[in-house]
Amino acid sequence: MHTIRLIYTSDAREDLRYRDFITIMDTAAETNRERAITGILCYGGGQFLQALEGERLAVNALYHHIATDPRHSNCQVLSVEEISTRDFAEWSMKIVDWNDAVTAARQTVLLKHSGSRHFDPANMSGQQASAFLREVAAMERLLTD
Amino acid sequence: MHTIRLIYTSDAREDLRYRDFITIMDTAAETNRERAITGILCYGGGQFLQALEGERLAVNALYHHIATDPRHSNCQVLSVEEISTRDFAEWSMKIVDWNDAVTAARQTVLLKHSGSRHFDPANMSGQQASAFLREVAAMERLLTD
Amino acid sequence: MHTIRLIYTSDAREDLRYRDFITIMDTAAETNRERAITGILCYGGGQFLQALEGERLAVNALYHHIATDPRHSNCQVLSVEEISTRDFAEWSMKIVDWNDAVTAARQTVLLKHSGSRHFDPANMSGQQASAFLREVAAMERLLTD
Amino acid sequence: MHTIRLIYTSDAREDLRYRDFITIMDTAAETNRERAITGILCYGGGQFLQALEGERLAVNALYHHIATDPRHSNCQVLSVEEISTRDFAEWSMKIVDWNDAVTAARQTVLLKHSGSRHFDPANMSGQQASAFLREVAAMERLLTD
Amino acid sequence: MHTIRLIYTSDAREDLRYRDFITIMDTAAETNRERAITGILCYGGGQFLQALEGERLAVNALYHHIATDPRHSNCQVLSVEEISTRDFAEWSMKIVDWNDAVTAARQTVLLKHSGSRHFDPANMSGQQASAFLREVAAMERLLTD
Amino acid sequence: MHTIRLIYTSDAREDLRYRDFITIMDTAAETNRERAITGILCYGGGQFLQALEGERLAVNALYHHIATDPRHSNCQVLSVEEISTRDFAEWSMKIVDWNDAVTAARQTVLLKHSGSRHFDPANMSGQQASAFLREVAAMERLLTD
Amino acid sequence: MHTIRLIYTSDAREDLRYRDFITIMDTAAETNRERAITGILCYGGGQFLQALEGERLAVNALYHHIATDPRHSNCQVLSVEEISTRDFAEWSMKIVDWNDAVTAARQTVLLKHSGSRHFDPANMSGQQASAFLREVAAMERLLTD
Amino acid sequence: MHTIRLIYTSDAREDLRYRDFITIMDTAAETNRERAITGILCYGGGQFLQALEGERLAVNALYHHIATDPRHSNCQVLSVEEISTRDFAEWSMKIVDWNDAVTAARQTVLLKHSGSRHFDPANMSGQQASAFLREVAAMERLLTD
Amino acid sequence: MHTIRLIYTSDAREDLRYRDFITIMDTAAETNRERAITGILCYGGGQFLQALEGERLAVNALYHHIATDPRHSNCQVLSVEEISTRDFAEWSMKIVDWNDAVTAARQTVLLKHSGSRHFDPANMSGQQASAFLREVAAMERLLTD
Amino acid sequence: MHTIRLIYTSDAREDLRYRDFITIMDTAAETNRERAITGILCYGGGQFLQALEGERLAVNALYHHIATDPRHSNCQVLSVEEISTRDFAEWSMKIVDWNDAVTAARQTVLLKHSGSRHFDPANMSGQQASAFLREVAAMERLLTD
Ligand SMILES: Cc1cc2nc3c(=O)[nH]c(=O)nc-3n(C[C@H](O)[C@H](O)[C@H](O)COP(=O)(O)O)c2cc1C
Ligand SMILES: Cc1cc2nc3c(=O)[nH]c(=O)nc-3n(C[C@H](O)[C@H](O)[C@H](O)COP(=O)(O)O)c2cc1C
Ligand SMILES: Cc1cc2nc3c(=O)[nH]c(=O)nc-3n(C[C@H](O)[C@H](O)[C@H](O)COP(=O)(O)O)c2cc1C
Ligand SMILES: Cc1cc2nc3c(=O)[nH]c(=O)nc-3n(C[C@H](O)[C@H](O)[C@H](O)COP(=O)(O)O)c2cc1C
Ligand SMILES: Cc1cc2nc3c(=O)[nH]c(=O)nc-3n(C[C@H](O)[C@H](O)[C@H](O)COP(=O)(O)O)c2cc1C
Ligand SMILES: Cc1cc2nc3c(=O)[nH]c(=O)nc-3n(C[C@H](O)[C@H](O)[C@H](O)COP(=O)(O)O)c2cc1C
Ligand SMILES: Cc1cc2nc3c(=O)[nH]c(=O)nc-3n(C[C@H](O)[C@H](O)[C@H](O)COP(=O)(O)O)c2cc1C
Ligand SMILES: Cc1cc2nc3c(=O)[nH]c(=O)nc-3n(C[C@H](O)[C@H](O)[C@H](O)COP(=O)(O)O)c2cc1C
Ligand SMILES: Cc1cc2nc3c(=O)[nH]c(=O)nc-3n(C[C@H](O)[C@H](O)[C@H](O)COP(=O)(O)O)c2cc1C
Ligand SMILES: Cc1cc2nc3c(=O)[nH]c(=O)nc-3n(C[C@H](O)[C@H](O)[C@H](O)COP(=O)(O)O)c2cc1C
Repeated sequence: MHTIRLIYTSDAREDLRYRDFITIMDTAAETNRERAITGILCYGGGQFLQALEGERLAVNALYHHIATDPRHSNCQVLSVEEISTRDFAEWSMKIVDWNDAVTAARQTVLLKHSGSRHFDPANMSGQQASAFLREVAAMERLLTD
Repeated sequence: MHTIRLIYTSDAREDLRYRDFITIMDTAAETNRERAITGILCYGGGQFLQALEGERLAVNALYHHIATDPRHSNCQVLSVEEISTRDFAEWSMKIVDWNDAVTAARQTVLLKHSGSRHFDPANMSGQQASAFLREVAAMERLLTD
Repeated sequence: MHTIRLIYTSDAREDLRYRDFITIMDTAAETNRERAITGILCYGGGQFLQALEGERLAVNALYHHIATDPRHSNCQVLSVEEISTRDFAEWSMKIVDWNDAVTAARQTVLLKHSGSRHFDPANMSGQQASAFLREVAAMERLLTD
Repeated sequence: MHTIRLIYTSDAREDLRYRDFITIMDTAAETNRERAITGILCYGGGQFLQALEGERLAVNALYHHIATDPRHSNCQVLSVEEISTRDFAEWSMKIVDWNDAVTAARQTVLLKHSGSRHFDPANMSGQQASAFLREVAAMERLLTD
Repeated sequence: MHTIRLIYTSDAREDLRYRDFITIMDTAAETNRERAITGILCYGGGQFLQALEGERLAVNALYHHIATDPRHSNCQVLSVEEISTRDFAEWSMKIVDWNDAVTAARQTVLLKHSGSRHFDPANMSGQQASAFLREVAAMERLLTD
Repeated sequence: MHTIRLIYTSDAREDLRYRDFITIMDTAAETNRERAITGILCYGGGQFLQALEGERLAVNALYHHIATDPRHSNCQVLSVEEISTRDFAEWSMKIVDWNDAVTAARQTVLLKHSGSRHFDPANMSGQQASAFLREVAAMERLLTD
Repeated sequence: MHTIRLIYTSDAREDLRYRDFITIMDTAAETNRERAITGILCYGGGQFLQALEGERLAVNALYHHIATDPRHSNCQVLSVEEISTRDFAEWSMKIVDWNDAVTAARQTVLLKHSGSRHFDPANMSGQQASAFLREVAAMERLLTD
Repeated sequence: MHTIRLIYTSDAREDLRYRDFITIMDTAAETNRERAITGILCYGGGQFLQALEGERLAVNALYHHIATDPRHSNCQVLSVEEISTRDFAEWSMKIVDWNDAVTAARQTVLLKHSGSRHFDPANMSGQQASAFLREVAAMERLLTD
Repeated sequence: MHTIRLIYTSDAREDLRYRDFITIMDTAAETNRERAITGILCYGGGQFLQALEGERLAVNALYHHIATDPRHSNCQVLSVEEISTRDFAEWSMKIVDWNDAVTAARQTVLLKHSGSRHFDPANMSGQQASAFLREVAAMERLLTD
Repeated sequence: MHTIRLIYTSDAREDLRYRDFITIMDTAAETNRERAITGILCYGGGQFLQALEGERLAVNALYHHIATDPRHSNCQVLSVEEISTRDFAEWSMKIVDWNDAVTAARQTVLLKHSGSRHFDPANMSGQQASAFLREVAAMERLLTD
């Protein structure tokens, strides 16, 4: 059995509304728990950036399923690597809305790991995306402590 | 622009015939050349193992297109990594039929990089698959020299 | 003289009861102390995961003896390595029942080091098992401090 | 799936004769081929030293089966490690009789990797045994080229 | 997209006055923010030392534009490297006037990273300039905390 | 004194003719020799890719002079690093016309170090450009041996 | 001049009494101070384990002198290495009686660095002995702080 | 420009008195400040050990000047290395009289980095001298904090 | 069991004659073979330099026995290290008389690994002695090939 | 005893003639042999670059003696490092006249390790000078083979 982390980005459907977002969150939390998948999903500026961690077959099945979801398009895998420890083990799926509360701290985190002050994961390298998500997770952990 | 190498495996459709195989080869050779995609595709025991190298957007677009091809199913990405040099730069797509001529040398290469003497990429780690494909490429280069 | 750490997993006999478990604990604590063997044993979901540290001959003798114990079957060695420092030096055998108190913290530790939220060591790599046991030991040390 | 290499040593039954040896060889060659197990087995001075490479479940099953074989006793595992490439991929089981032809070259190989000029694997470290077997394999490859 | 950090030094126009300095600061703060460029600019002893971080095209365009600014001359690039994390992400452009308040602490920082106690970046290596700017930034962060 | 290597790319003026190219070559060969600058210049598909090695002041002076040459535009520095050994020490300026003789070998070299089969240095990373120029130089050395 | 650390073990004469022990201590403290030798000496279960640090000639002279002392026998050097910093610089000779107060903490330290819960340095590797003595020294420093 | 650190030792003139010492200190403090030279000078047991950091030309000029000073002889350079950060940036010349206050702590520092309890730099390796001076500097910083 | 390599130097008795030398050689060759000890012994300018490889107990017993041999004095151990491969496995004891045939090649080897053109092992570091003996062995292997 | 390599550069006296050069060579060859000093001396464009290898006291004594030789001035040490193997062991002093036969190959070697096509060691870093001298030595070895 191989444990992997897959990171991808995609374009959200333009008319996506808050309600859709809640639905995704609810589904993800439930089905991922069953499949022992953990991860984080950032949404902002019409793009998604998601990390999926878990057993290789399960992560691939989920990813190929998500990729056909009409609520987004242009899925682009940024990195897939075998891991022996997960980065987001405590969350079935941590969802971070990057649209609201675009504080200075958040802008700095974005700039630190990309070429832009806007959330634009399609222009991040796999390494940047991975470091960015780890730092976002660290911020979220601070908030909930 | 990011150059990546994506390696995946899949199950070939059971009734796939030699003619279909030729068709895939012809298409791949032509369209990959246009998109500056290079790689290698092994076929054997009802499974495919393919490496796609090129610009990240192009590789992702091609992969998601291939993944819906009815001639195979259960696509499973084994690794995606950013590279600065390609391993298969001289081939638009090198196709290696692992069914015929299963020589002792070929069996040894398989055993060397996996847990099985049969071509069974779904049970290889990303690292094993990558080393296996590099060694297969080296053998092919010797044959054509 | 060679000091080694051997990690194995096995399937507990289905009708194993709490009483048997206590018996194992008592025997292990006593005989290991005499043989200068230290380690940790996790039990959960019908599987065992045990690390045995000590002199190579003693560890092998004990392991081959345990392997024939009818209270479990399908012993599978995950790793054997020569060490110069032990990880579990303070315990003749630390026994951790992974069935009770499956707290969120414990689930996170499992997910962090495996592909599953259930205790399923037969699907861990040797590296995952070793890191998992070290983290379990760290948690136990916190509890008893 | 995990590919491992397990190295163990044991004491041969005193009355073991050449005929028994041939029988072991025949069985090993055949059953290992089916289970995709590869390796090398040295016999000398009343001791065995064997490396078994393959899928973790298969190697463990075979090892525990061999360990109960009355033709030897005191099996002692020297090392178990996960590998991505095998060292003995071309042999289902290469058998090397260390009793005959104890040439100077062979004695030097023994001394180079152990504390003794006699074949005495029970006193080798796991690292010594592994380097010794690799060098023995290299010598055998030269002979058959 | 490539994120780079470019460090250069130049000679300030001799009659440069405080007013000019303020103008540069105002322009830089505004236009850099739009272009997602971050960095730090030290001024002292008639020389500038500036680090520009951001997307490669944007940084180059800005640098070539700055290089023709009549308020300085003899621009000399000390280093250009691709980065995945920025050092000065929180500042569109941090401006540090090295003329006033040349405290002992500041002199020590200069000596630590150069051959001189005067601010003389044209004689720093790229590595020295980069370490110097990181230490200056750390001091500024302390002041504003 | 600091020895550096600066690599940049630019867009050739559209109406550039063979004659202009010869003129550049003649100037470069002569003035670089005087300034102890060495390097390589590739031309293809309307773009230049040039490496300049030498004393930091001299390389910067030359680069800023070249950058204003009307025969090209959009100069973009890809990397600047301090070196203790030069890669192109035997050439004042080696000029390689990538337009003619676009052999298969040359295409393979391009693909190997970039995302494209066309000479498109503006989309190479600094690391890719540097490895590409070293491999081009190696090919040229073979031709002239 | 070469600074070395020599670690050896030996068997104490059976009838050694506390008085002899005190005599050794007194001599060592005085003569080592004169020769700038530092170190630590553990005594337990009829064995000695001693580290001697200092100038190579002085350490060798002392060691060969000690080795003929009738109060112990079977001196066995475990390691000799050139060092640039000493581990026991603050003690002319720190003497630790491992017989009394064999606390649980002490047993754990022994187990951590050897195959046995008894003080049995003849079965430690050089690396284990060296790590063990450093940890013993750390414990002693805590006691005297 | 190259920044270096040069460490040398020498024999003080036998009749050197405290007054001479003060004179050296005064000169050093003043002229080093002008030349941007920093460092540390230990005096003890009739020997000097000095580290000089700064621009290569300046350090060499000063060293060759000092070497002819009749107040010492037998100058012996222990190491010269190019550095990008200085170790003693805050001191034009820190002078440490190793004769007075030869506390236990000081003796331990000496033993830790040399073969002797006396200040005898002529028998230190370059690496020992450099580590010794850094530890002396750390002690001095503690005293003046 | 621990395999070690011990390197020591000593002063030969002044009146040592060729006959004594032959006697040592004969004894060493025979007794070392029995004890599985291998090594090399250089003699020159009144000094010995010897490497002894083998099981730790055996090497120590032999060394302490040799150290009391009246044919030399002032034995000084230069290094003792645990090894997993021997450097001199093919020789029970290779004896090299450094007095005769002091060719230019031999002098160069001496200079390369020491501060002197004369054979003066008492002034070699452990690292120098070890590299010197390896190079001497390589020269001897060439002679006998 | 410490073996070091000291590299320095200096300005030759303007009226130095070939005869003086021969005299230096003769002296160096003889006295260095006695002191077990080895090295290489390049002369060109009015500058010297010399490496001196040997015992630390001897090298320092010689260097300080050479530094006062009126046939050159402005001695500047570029590096001093402790070594365990010498680079120029076969030459008491190899003298290379960089003035005559300034072949293209020689110019390339200079450019490769410095910022200039002229022999100008005062502008080399210690690392460049050391690599340059090693490459010069390699060329000389080829010539005399
Ligand atoms: C950006 C995005 C991320 C998603 N992440 C997950 C996820 O982590 N887990 C999940 O089960 N579904 C996720 N979904 C929803 C799936 O695409 C799908 O709707 C869901 O699995 C239910 O599938 P079903 O309707 O076929 O049962 C995501 C959808 C989007 C658009
Ligand atoms: C295993 C497998 C590998 C393939 N590899 C490629 C490939 O490398 N490039 C390619 O263009 N098509 C490849 N194809 C074919 C595509 O799936 C698809 O048929 C082809 O791109 C033509 O697409 P179109 O019919 O939509 O134009 C592959 C198909 C299979 C089953
Ligand atoms: C999962 C498991 C772990 C065990 N661990 C140990 C152990 O660490 N030490 C031990 O002495 N016995 C252990 N035992 C018990 C032994 O198998 C055996 O019962 C015990 O050594 C007594 O052996 P005896 O009845 O032959 O004297 C374990 C048994 C099981 C099922
Ligand atoms: C030292 C030794 C090594 C052996 N190696 C193998 C082996 O590699 N593969 C194998 O199938 N049997 C090996 N055997 C034989 C097995 O122990 C056993 O006899 C064989 O698998 C047939 O098992 P069965 O009689 O239960 O079918 C070995 C036996 C010994 C004594
Ligand atoms: C030393 C120095 C640093 C500068 N840094 C920046 C900068 O970081 N960003 C910026 O937009 N302008 C900077 N400028 C100002 C630009 O050169 C230019 O004046 C400014 O971009 C406005 O350009 P414009 O007048 O062509 O619109 C700098 C000027 C100098 C002299
Ligand atoms: C792509 C390109 C590369 C050039 N490379 C060099 C060069 O390496 N050295 C050089 O002296 N001139 C080079 N030149 C020419 C310079 O831009 C300039 O024309 C030349 O130095 C003469 O300058 P001058 O006319 O001001 O004397 C290059 C020009 C172009 C367009
Ligand atoms: C285990 C052991 C350790 C010793 N350690 C030292 C020591 O560190 N320094 C020392 O001077 N003597 C030490 N001695 C004592 C010496 O063997 C010897 O008695 C002492 O140096 C006095 O020698 P002398 O009687 O020949 O003067 C030690 C003795 C033993 C048995
Ligand atoms: C051990 C020692 C260290 C010295 N260190 C310095 C120093 O760091 N800086 C300095 O300027 N002079 C130092 N001096 C003093 C110089 O040798 C010299 O006296 C001083 O630079 C004044 O030179 P002048 O008399 O030629 O002007 C030192 C002298 C000695 C003996
Ligand atoms: C420099 C030197 C090296 C020696 N090397 C060995 C050796 O490697 N093996 C050995 O058995 N004896 C060696 N000897 C001889 C022993 O010291 C001793 O004479 C020999 O082991 C016979 O011991 P015995 O007379 O007590 O039986 C060496 C002697 C000297 C002086
Ligand atoms: C550049 C240069 C390099 C020299 N190299 C050496 C050398 O390597 N060895 C040497 O003995 N003398 C060398 N000398 C000559 C010494 O400076 C000095 O003349 C020589 O050692 C004789 O010294 P004496 O006249 O005091 O006996 C060199 C001189 C110069 C100018």
